[in-house]
Order: sequence, then C-alpha cells, then structure tokens
Amino acid sequence: MLAALPDLPPTTPADEAEWPAILDDVREIILPALTHWQSPGFFGYFPATGSWPAVLGDLLSTGLCVQGMLWQTSPAVTEIETRVLDWMARLCDLPEKFLSTSQGGGVIQGTASEATLVAMVAARHRMRTRQPDTTPGTLVAYTSTQAHSSVLKATRIAGIEHLRLVPTDTDHTLDPNVLRSMIEQDIADGLTPFYICATAGTTSSGAFDPIDRIAQVRDELAPDAWLHVDGAWAGSAAVCPEFRWFLNGLDQADSYCTNPHKWLLTNFDCDLFYVADRATLIDSLSVTPEYLRNTATDSGAVIDYRDWQIPLGRRFRSLKLWFVLRHYGAEGLQAHIRQHVRWAEWLEEQILADNRFELAAPRSLALVCFRLAGDRDADTRALLEAANATGKVLLTHTTLPDTEARDRYTIRVAIGGVNNTLESVKALWNLLGTLAG
Amino acid sequence: MLAALPDLPPTTPADEAEWPAILDDVREIILPALTHWQSPGFFGYFPATGSWPAVLGDLLSTGLCVQGMLWQTSPAVTEIETRVLDWMARLCDLPEKFLSTSQGGGVIQGTASEATLVAMVAARHRMRTRQPDTTPGTLVAYTSTQAHSSVLKATRIAGIEHLRLVPTDTDHTLDPNVLRSMIEQDIADGLTPFYICATAGTTSSGAFDPIDRIAQVRDELAPDAWLHVDGAWAGSAAVCPEFRWFLNGLDQADSYCTNPHKWLLTNFDCDLFYVADRATLIDSLSVTPEYLRNTATDSGAVIDYRDWQIPLGRRFRSLKLWFVLRHYGAEGLQAHIRQHVRWAEWLEEQILADNRFELAAPRSLALVCFRLAGDRDADTRALLEAANATGKVLLTHTTLPDTEARDRYTIRVAIGGVNNTLESVKALWNLLGTLAG
Repeated sequence: MLAALPDLPPTTPADEAEWPAILDDVREIILPALTHWQSPGFFGYFPATGSWPAVLGDLLSTGLCVQGMLWQTSPAVTEIETRVLDWMARLCDLPEKFLSTSQGGGVIQGTASEATLVAMVAARHRMRTRQPDTTPGTLVAYTSTQAHSSVLKATRIAGIEHLRLVPTDTDHTLDPNVLRSMIEQDIADGLTPFYICATAGTTSSGAFDPIDRIAQVRDELAPDAWLHVDGAWAGSAAVCPEFRWFLNGLDQADSYCTNPHKWLLTNFDCDLFYVADRATLIDSLSVTPEYLRNTATDSGAVIDYRDWQIPLGRRFRSLKLWFVLRHYGAEGLQAHIRQHVRWAEWLEEQILADNRFELAAPRSLALVCFRLAGDRDADTRALLEAANATGKVLLTHTTLPDTEARDRYTIRVAIGGVNNTLESVKALWNLLGTLAG
Repeated sequence: MLAALPDLPPTTPADEAEWPAILDDVREIILPALTHWQSPGFFGYFPATGSWPAVLGDLLSTGLCVQGMLWQTSPAVTEIETRVLDWMARLCDLPEKFLSTSQGGGVIQGTASEATLVAMVAARHRMRTRQPDTTPGTLVAYTSTQAHSSVLKATRIAGIEHLRLVPTDTDHTLDPNVLRSMIEQDIADGLTPFYICATAGTTSSGAFDPIDRIAQVRDELAPDAWLHVDGAWAGSAAVCPEFRWFLNGLDQADSYCTNPHKWLLTNFDCDLFYVADRATLIDSLSVTPEYLRNTATDSGAVIDYRDWQIPLGRRFRSLKLWFVLRHYGAEGLQAHIRQHVRWAEWLEEQILADNRFELAAPRSLALVCFRLAGDRDADTRALLEAANATGKVLLTHTTLPDTEARDRYTIRVAIGGVNNTLESVKALWNLLGTLAG
C-alpha cells in the first residue's frame, strides 16, 4: 500500500484545490486497507463501538482544542469528567467508595493497559509507604494465566521483577487456592506481594475471576497488597442489573477499570478508571513544577487529573461519554447490551444442538468460544481461516485449555458491534455450518 | 459549575428531541467554564494548535472507528503512520537512522511524557541486555534542573530509584561539565548511568541543551547509556532550516520526540517519537498472547505499533497529521512558524527598549521570558495577575534563576496560537505597559 504514497511531503501549500485529490486518496488508498471493525460481519477481538453522539462529542472536543491537564487549564474538562464518571458509577451500581464524593473517584484513561499500569504504580507507592523497609526487587504481582497481556507489559514498564501467573480453574478463572499457596510461598521466601489483578471477563473466554474470594486471600495473607479489577470488556454489561453479579466483591478492590470504547457506544479512547483512595494515586504520580503552579491547585480544592494518569496533557474525552449517556439514557444502553447477549445465547444454542461443534468455554455475556468437536485443532483453524477468506466475516481465535489441560485452538465470536444484528449472527452460523461440511 | 448538572444520568432515551437541550448545556454550562486556548490573547503554557485539516482528519479517524494496535487490525493505520513519520523526519532533516527504512523508525505517542517513559523503559532493557549483571536499584537517570516534570514522573512510573537533576548554566542549559562530574561520581559509587534526557527547548525558557556535548560525555563515560532528546515544543521549528541548529548532535541520540500538537497545527494528541534502534524498543515492550497472534505478525514483515507504546489499542492519529502536511505543505508550515518567531522578536525588542522590563532569558524562537527590572518579584506577579484579570489575555509564569542563582518570578509569553496575530501581541504589550504604570 505504501508504494502508492509519495516519499516526500508536498512542498507548496495545497489549500482547497488539492482536497478532492486528498479525499480520493482516502477512498482509494486508505479505505481498502482498513479492517472494517464496524462491519455487520465483524466478530473479532472485542467490539470497538461508536455512535453518532460520541462522534459529535469527539468532534466538539477536537474543535474546542483545549487542554485539561489541570483544573485551571479548563475547569469544564475536569468537572464534566468527574460528573460523568460518577454517573457511570451510579449507573453500574459500583461501590460508593469509587464516587468522587467519597475518598475515591474516577478518571478517563486512554486504555485499560494504562489503568493496569497506573494501579500498579499506586500499589507500589502504597506498599513502600506502609512498609518502608520493602526493597523494590522483592515486590510480587499476581494475575491469572488468562489475564490480559497488559499486566505483563505493566510489570515491564514499572520495573517489577516478579509476576506470578496463577493457573486457572477448569472454567478459566483464577483459582484462589493456588493464589493462596503462591502468596504463602512468596512470603516464606522473603518476597512482598503488593498487587493482584483480577479479571472481570477475560479476553480469551470472558471468564470472571472470583473477586470476593481473591480479596479474602489478600486480606488474610497480604492486607497491604492492592487489588485491581480489570473489567475492560465486560464492565459495560454492568449497566444491566441482571449482569452485575460478576462484580461481586468489587467493594473489596482498590481500583477498577472498564472501557466504554469497547461495548458502550463511546468511540475509542475511553477507559474509566476508579480508585477507592485517590490520595494514594495522586501521591504516587504528582510532580508540580513552577510553570504548572496555580492558586486553584495550591488551594487543594480542585482535581488536577494529570496526577491520575501517565501523560500530562489530556483531551476533553468526557464529552463523548456525556453525549452517549444523555442520548441513550440508562434504558437505551441496557437495551443495547441485552440484545447482544440474546444473540449470543442464540448462537450458543445452535452450537449445543450441533454435534459437529463444541463449546470451548461457557458462553460469557455476548462472547461465545467454540471449536470443532473432538481433537481437531487444525480443522478448527482451517475453518476460521476459510470463514475469514470469504471476506464476509472477521473472526479471531485464542487457545483455551481443555479438561485435560491441553491448549486447544478456539474460535471466538464476540458480538457487540453496532452493526451486528441477529441476521448477521445467523449468517455467520450458516457460513460456518456450510464450511464445516 | 457542577451544581448545574444533575446527579444522575437520564433513565430514558432522549433521542433527537433532547438535543437542543444538550447543546444548550454545552453553550451555557461548558463553554463559559473553558480556558480559551484558541483565543488571540492566549499566550500561556505552550500553544495547543489545531487547524481544520487536522479536525477533519480527527473526525474521519473517529468515524472510521478502527483499531490500529496491530498491522493486521487495519493495515492503513500502521502504513500511513509510518509514512507520515518518515515525511516529518525528512521535512525536519532528522538523522537518517530515525527513518523506517533504516534500523529505526517513528511512531505517534499521545504525549511527550509517554515518549520520555517509553525511552526510559527501552534504555533499561538495553542496559540489562548489554550488562546483565546490572541490578535495577543501581540505575541512574540524568536530566537538567530545567527539564520537564515528565522525566521525574517517568522515573516514578518505571521504578527508577536515582534521578540526577544536573544544574544549568547561566543560559538555563544543562552544563555538560557538571554532568560529567556527576556520572564520574556515580560510577565511582558503583552505580550505573543508563539514561540521559536532553531538552531541546525547555518549558520554562526554551533553553537548548547542548546535545553534542552531552553525547560526548555519554560516549566517554557511559557508552551504554541511552540519550533521549525531548523537543516537545521547539521541534516543530525544525521544519525551517534556519532553526535546526538546536538539534545539532541529534545523530548521537537514541531517541527523539516532538509534538505537532503544540505548534504545528495538529490537534492534540500527536507526539512523534523516533528511535534509532527499533528492535530494542520492541523487545522491551512486546508481549504476544495467543489472541493477538496472526500470520502477518509471525512473518516479522510488518510493524505492530502496540509494541512501540504503553497502551495496546490505538487510534488512527496519523490521518490528521497527513492532512496537515498535505494541506499546508512544507512552505505553509514554515510560514506558520516564522511569523510567530518574528512577532516574538518584535516583543523582545520592545522589552529591551523599555527600562521598566528586563529579559529573564534569551528569547527562544517564539517564547519570551521577562520580568520587571530590578528585584521586584511581587510586582511582576501582580502584573501578570492584573493582566489575566482583564480577561483579554492569558499569561503563565515560571521561575528562573538570575545571575546570582536566585529563583526569580518570570512572565512567559508563548506565541504560536493559531489566532495569535501581530496585533494581539501588540495589544498584550500595550496592556502590560499600561498596567506596569
């Protein structure tokens, strides 16, 4: 594709006259080389949803072109964000402690990866504050073998030497008993457990780690360790009361994140990160040079979100979520989630009724993982590749351990795109059935 | 302001009928509570420029709603980015080694803070690869007392225990002789210098650290240490050949960043980060779980930008810069920069000709730092506050050491906003003259 682009930027200003040619390039060079995440047949990865209210909010944010690094640098950027994060906490019935009116609060990060990292940095800071004799090289983080790759990436960035990947139960959830043994062993070895990341909806199969039981282990063995809950994908479903059970125990967590840019109609990037104790977070990240000092910050009466994140600068990202919430309302968002879960249930029923296929994991909300029945990894892979080769659908895969702990090739169907429909799910199933022969 | 917003999000969908009320809230609640960065009288911090080509690119990016985490997940997102970063490198005559056709290459980060951090993580990885016996607690980073706060923040995030703030010369640039002494002492103490951040245009005064002399010290004493150059603000001026002198020595650096979102008409966020050795960077950040594996990545023939940054997910940010480059061309961008430098020269001349004022630092490109003449910090502060209180201008301050090394309150005038004009600079000067009495 690059061959179609010149090696050098233009020398002279093009101005309006050049725009038809620029837009031709968009159509002819760029559009054919995109993966169409908004296609009705896209079921890969997790959805990256958007909506016109979110696009409008983002456009307004770009056009206003203001900086939200400090309250002072545009009060509305901070204040709307605080309010919208509180709205989302109430809408999902998150623990009180995550509200800005408590000791905690929420902030928009770009991605869950950043939330995972920021939580880890705050966790280390708290541990070294509470146990000043701790040496950094003894710190140990824990998450499951099914957790997102961002946990490992965060340890590399933060310079954490020890990460334990806790084996999962047969349903692909973190096994608290194994976590217990690992922590006991590490403490016996003179190490310091400081961070546990539980996943509320893993990427591979949507598995829900038992937050409450993990918190119990933490409380008993390592009460100073930080418990972060990664609900990047599944957290959107918590707008529906009937799906909130997977956040049981969240009131024991120190932080939580979820991404409306995945499944809640808010264009990327928009990760909601909540902490129970904002003072610790701020203390771990705050640096105030003279050129950023101002009376509002000095008063301590305002939130400066730069101290809640890695970057200094920040966009007015809350506008798009504010527009989404005002446009759809709670009921509109619930209907959006529920329809996708229904369609996934339909797909699950077809798989259970068809002896050519088997589920690789229990259906999780709108994610269905399956494979060809029997020991047929190569055939399952060929099926996925054949389906993608039609250009009508896009599926991605993972591997999941079977009952004998062998990693098995698995097709993931993640329903939730704004252009997915029951018809497009049925078309997918027909296609797979035909190709499976 | 928050009081004007309801405590809870709406329950029922609003749909189109509600939009006039939503947009009324934008006008009545949000707009009055913004700091108007695009006002002709805004001279604070550094500019946050935008332009309609960039807004259009951002709108298209939002509307396409694709994910660029892997080449595979939308090839055009990666390929346009690679090409645009090469264009910018050629346009600014950056060292060959930063081109994608060499061993290096460029990537868009959100902010310079992230570039600083990512460079630090790569630096640590390289040091531990080259000197495997190095223990993390012995690593030392260096930057000047005038460097951006993001360097200190990066050490906190990365868990680096030692950061040396090297004192500056009378022109507020890092003193290589002091750097030399500090590195010698640290090596004598058994520590390991691994990262040096030089600043090409400091935030306080636009001072340019001597990159070549810093590189020489590095080469002599700590050849495995990584040299990162932070040109967040000033780097945009390198589109003009006559302003490139401040990047002398950049060919000795391991990485470099600059922010078109500051002074080059590209709406936030858009930081260009270049590395000389992409393999080291990728090696330090790459984690590939099964659910992200694909034949393109496995072939090694494509760039997966997720391995060049902290987050996994990424927007199609290169579109806005591509549009800016195509619309303005090299000459348009040069004219944009040059006019601001001319206006700053005009302001500098007024200050030099007015014995009520004195420069606090040499004018740097379009940044002018000054104070009331004599020992009058409180009066200078009162002047800035009185000017801001008119609502006609926005100025921010810093402190800069005077010839007797006393920190002095300093007014910064950063010209470069898209609505700044020579007239608005003259109006600012008239206002300050009147208020100074």
